[in-house]
Amino acid sequence: MLRSTVQLHGKTWARAFSASANKIGFIGLGQMGGNMAINLAKAGNNLVVFDVVGANIEAVKPHGKVEVAASPREVAASATTIVTMLPSTPHVEEVYLGSNGLIHELTKGHFLIDSSTIDPGFTKKLSARLAQDVGASFVDAPVSGGVNGAKNATLTFMVGGSDSAFAKATPILKQMGKNIVHCGDVSTGQAAKICNNLALAIEMVAVSEAMTLGDKLGIDPKVLAGILNTSSGQCWSSTLYNPYPGVLENVPASNDYKGGFASVLMRKDLGLALDAAKSTEASVPLTSTVHQLYNMIVAQGNGQKDFSYVLKFLEGQKK
Amino acid sequence: MLRSTVQLHGKTWARAFSASANKIGFIGLGQMGGNMAINLAKAGNNLVVFDVVGANIEAVKPHGKVEVAASPREVAASATTIVTMLPSTPHVEEVYLGSNGLIHELTKGHFLIDSSTIDPGFTKKLSARLAQDVGASFVDAPVSGGVNGAKNATLTFMVGGSDSAFAKATPILKQMGKNIVHCGDVSTGQAAKICNNLALAIEMVAVSEAMTLGDKLGIDPKVLAGILNTSSGQCWSSTLYNPYPGVLENVPASNDYKGGFASVLMRKDLGLALDAAKSTEASVPLTSTVHQLYNMIVAQGNGQKDFSYVLKFLEGQKK
Amino acid sequence: MLRSTVQLHGKTWARAFSASANKIGFIGLGQMGGNMAINLAKAGNNLVVFDVVGANIEAVKPHGKVEVAASPREVAASATTIVTMLPSTPHVEEVYLGSNGLIHELTKGHFLIDSSTIDPGFTKKLSARLAQDVGASFVDAPVSGGVNGAKNATLTFMVGGSDSAFAKATPILKQMGKNIVHCGDVSTGQAAKICNNLALAIEMVAVSEAMTLGDKLGIDPKVLAGILNTSSGQCWSSTLYNPYPGVLENVPASNDYKGGFASVLMRKDLGLALDAAKSTEASVPLTSTVHQLYNMIVAQGNGQKDFSYVLKFLEGQKK
Amino acid sequence: MLRSTVQLHGKTWARAFSASANKIGFIGLGQMGGNMAINLAKAGNNLVVFDVVGANIEAVKPHGKVEVAASPREVAASATTIVTMLPSTPHVEEVYLGSNGLIHELTKGHFLIDSSTIDPGFTKKLSARLAQDVGASFVDAPVSGGVNGAKNATLTFMVGGSDSAFAKATPILKQMGKNIVHCGDVSTGQAAKICNNLALAIEMVAVSEAMTLGDKLGIDPKVLAGILNTSSGQCWSSTLYNPYPGVLENVPASNDYKGGFASVLMRKDLGLALDAAKSTEASVPLTSTVHQLYNMIVAQGNGQKDFSYVLKFLEGQKK
Repeated sequence: MLRSTVQLHGKTWARAFSASANKIGFIGLGQMGGNMAINLAKAGNNLVVFDVVGANIEAVKPHGKVEVAASPREVAASATTIVTMLPSTPHVEEVYLGSNGLIHELTKGHFLIDSSTIDPGFTKKLSARLAQDVGASFVDAPVSGGVNGAKNATLTFMVGGSDSAFAKATPILKQMGKNIVHCGDVSTGQAAKICNNLALAIEMVAVSEAMTLGDKLGIDPKVLAGILNTSSGQCWSSTLYNPYPGVLENVPASNDYKGGFASVLMRKDLGLALDAAKSTEASVPLTSTVHQLYNMIVAQGNGQKDFSYVLKFLEGQKK
Repeated sequence: MLRSTVQLHGKTWARAFSASANKIGFIGLGQMGGNMAINLAKAGNNLVVFDVVGANIEAVKPHGKVEVAASPREVAASATTIVTMLPSTPHVEEVYLGSNGLIHELTKGHFLIDSSTIDPGFTKKLSARLAQDVGASFVDAPVSGGVNGAKNATLTFMVGGSDSAFAKATPILKQMGKNIVHCGDVSTGQAAKICNNLALAIEMVAVSEAMTLGDKLGIDPKVLAGILNTSSGQCWSSTLYNPYPGVLENVPASNDYKGGFASVLMRKDLGLALDAAKSTEASVPLTSTVHQLYNMIVAQGNGQKDFSYVLKFLEGQKK
Repeated sequence: MLRSTVQLHGKTWARAFSASANKIGFIGLGQMGGNMAINLAKAGNNLVVFDVVGANIEAVKPHGKVEVAASPREVAASATTIVTMLPSTPHVEEVYLGSNGLIHELTKGHFLIDSSTIDPGFTKKLSARLAQDVGASFVDAPVSGGVNGAKNATLTFMVGGSDSAFAKATPILKQMGKNIVHCGDVSTGQAAKICNNLALAIEMVAVSEAMTLGDKLGIDPKVLAGILNTSSGQCWSSTLYNPYPGVLENVPASNDYKGGFASVLMRKDLGLALDAAKSTEASVPLTSTVHQLYNMIVAQGNGQKDFSYVLKFLEGQKK
Repeated sequence: MLRSTVQLHGKTWARAFSASANKIGFIGLGQMGGNMAINLAKAGNNLVVFDVVGANIEAVKPHGKVEVAASPREVAASATTIVTMLPSTPHVEEVYLGSNGLIHELTKGHFLIDSSTIDPGFTKKLSARLAQDVGASFVDAPVSGGVNGAKNATLTFMVGGSDSAFAKATPILKQMGKNIVHCGDVSTGQAAKICNNLALAIEMVAVSEAMTLGDKLGIDPKVLAGILNTSSGQCWSSTLYNPYPGVLENVPASNDYKGGFASVLMRKDLGLALDAAKSTEASVPLTSTVHQLYNMIVAQGNGQKDFSYVLKFLEGQKK
């Protein structure tokens, strides 16, 4: 039986674990998760990993001691500290609560860190169920900083959970990121993430409208960017990620909108924000309008372009 | 006859002018213009002023040598350097081109600085007409920095005009402000101003949506503001002018939205942006949506509240 | 055991049923469902009803032979034809699939008609599960026509299901409505309903903007309504439900926006439309904007006013 | 001198006019105006026409007694009843008030009908000036019905002016249209026109969103159109001008969006509506959003497509 086998493994691993305090389970080894897991491996932790894509697993293996599990529940049977980094709410539900999900092996000794960006309402329910059904503790810890941040271990983690859970998560997260921010109780990490990203998306469109209109009115884009950046119109998107080609080097706008944060992913985060707004009855007229703009960008086949491409969409570019 | 009288005055004043190189005409002595004129007077310039409101004139008089003209044309008869600071495009048209307007006394020796925030299309036409009909030179130099900036001579001037006109304007503007930015040819000062302000308005609503939603999702407003300010959602409105009461001291949001930049004035600037967008065929979906939000705020009787009041509007506050 | 008891009842009722072909279960006796059930009772059907609110049940009882069940599953044990009329997707999920839900007693002889307005995605899943797990057949049949339509049996039913299921549903629905429209396969009834309602909401705002602007431009509201109604701006909201007070008699706008279709319910339907748009990646910029307008109306405490109140909201009314 | 010559002509023509009560000046012979003028000519009126495009004049000539004037002022010298049909406010300003404008020859015997669709604010000012300066009487009479309506003399005229002016205009307008509607005082014709057209544009997008979403949800477009048309989502655009290809024959949507009412012209009318809303402080959130949608459609090079093309834009079509 899987369970008894697993319990056997559990004992073995428990012993191994007592010898090494740093066994960490990691589920979800995509562009973000893969690089995060590599940083944990490089830092000397023993990893037990799971991903549905074999190539993702192979990419992590060379970077340290990496054991491969056949399912989330096997990860839980093998490690008591587990990080998950998954693309959407249904994926998180499946990994935690599905028929081969973590929950079947979780105990009150388990500590779970979910770095996925998902519906904060689900996060709250999940955490409550884990606490009640198996006594496991949980923090949500979504990230900002993109693939480069994941590679260079310079991510920001927005953490939701109790003070003690935050204290427990911090040393692990420090190995993958630079800023570890305690946002409040469980699910406030998700809340912070989606609030930041809705502001980011709107501000990017704000800068795009300003730059487009200024250009048409005859003001040099670099001059206008300089004015915005020293005035009340300043924002991260004007200063560090300007959507007008050539204003800044090394941003997607100056590289045909390649790389960066894909429009289709921004649409996903805006969708989460709208779901959260609906369930809390918050009025978010611009989040809503911007979500539709990214909808149109995706519909025209440009979903893989960086989200600063919205400037070109406003200008009428179609390719 | 007015004209001969004026010509007579003109000679007198011309003589006075040869004795003092710092005679400056100033038209429009409201909250902004009044303080700007006072700074010019304090700096030792002789002023010739005009305003339709007597009390505005009285407020400036005590601060230096202040002569009072009976009309814009009398100002032009008395001073060759003239600053105008007026509430809207029609006012500027009247002061420059009306029946008692500047144009009737302008010569090629005159130098005009318009610090009003108006339609850049009109600015371009006005400048061309002044150059062609009377040979006068002109810069547009709208400001940012508000009433406090006007009082403390810390305004930013966004200047549109030739290099030589900019050079000529700079020492005068320095007496009223801190940053004097050359934006390009005539009207690009106006363009910069309205582009900055549309970005500002949109970003303010972005922060308001993020703060409102975050609040409803259970994250502490100060914590959320801290996260935005160190993340990609950062903007001037989140950092220095946060719309959530209590996050920052000394901002209108923490003083029942009194003071600051009135919603009705932000609506005016957004209206200018939309006019400019229409004439240049620029797509500005968020500028447009935000203009409507300020329309509703004004319609509900809250136009005099600072523009950060939009957060309360989104929350459903009505008073 | 409940089950055997119920099976016993089942036999008894089966016999009764052979005598009378018209035993119908009805779950959800609110303002709409109550009136619909009364029409079924008046038409001579024997009803087995369930509602969580006792008073709702009492209101139906006097109108015919009405048996009261203690749970949805008891309804299913007693009747093979069942109509459900519930306020939202989670209610439908609970009634069909909950611990005391219909599913525990359904057989392949059961025929289910869901007249609730809910997420068409859930409808599709529910129907598939009923077919697969218990072999029951199902149609979605949301309505339009409001409380008056329910009272007067003049509702329109938008039916999604197979041809044979539609044929089976029709005579039952005819007793509660006038127009029975076959929209296509299961869930297309829901699709038709939310598409109609998003169009309705947007058109109501369209008329409100036209009437408000026309009023401010000095055209008599009745004259303007007459022009719209004979021109290309004509719509149901201009012709039969004009939001400007006094243009039509007997509409909510002429009765201080009382009665009619509450803003909070319109917001709910727009929310369903947005969910459906998200899952199908449809671009719906106006649905999205209008949803936010109704959000604001509800936030200001006017959610119970008829949805034509949006005209007053645009005018700046706050009470 | 032109003036005396003209006065001479004036007398001659005045005599001709007494013999024939039907001399009509017509300025603006484009697609609309040309067909309208032809209908006046066919009805037996003597025309005096002006247009800046020679070919437009040639197209009218064969249809009756058509005299050609060299300028608007010459038209006014020759005819006391004058119809103008021009593309925008500045054109109307030039034709009435420009250096060769009508005003130089107008007398209190003149009667002017402006069928252009322009800013109602300008219309009001123009009418007041004509009354005050020369005593001429004026009505605004914009049309709906498109090029086909102009050809077939089935236009609707929305007339703003006094009762007596309306009575005077009616027999003339009857020769070019079918419905002659008195909207109120001067400029209410324009108000009615732009209010109708903003409602039309919004309703077209409403139907486009409903049809697009319904299509993606699996409901047959013809079935959905049928449901809308018999339900509360009904509007002129769903019934007579459905934007989904193939639902109706003989509409632009079924002819690759050729013909009909160009998107760029709808954008112009929405621009007029927004100007009017700004000057009257009306809140028009959807007019504003739809204006931006047509901006994007034009920016992507599809301005000449019928305005029902917005459905394809929402679907992501780019060509």
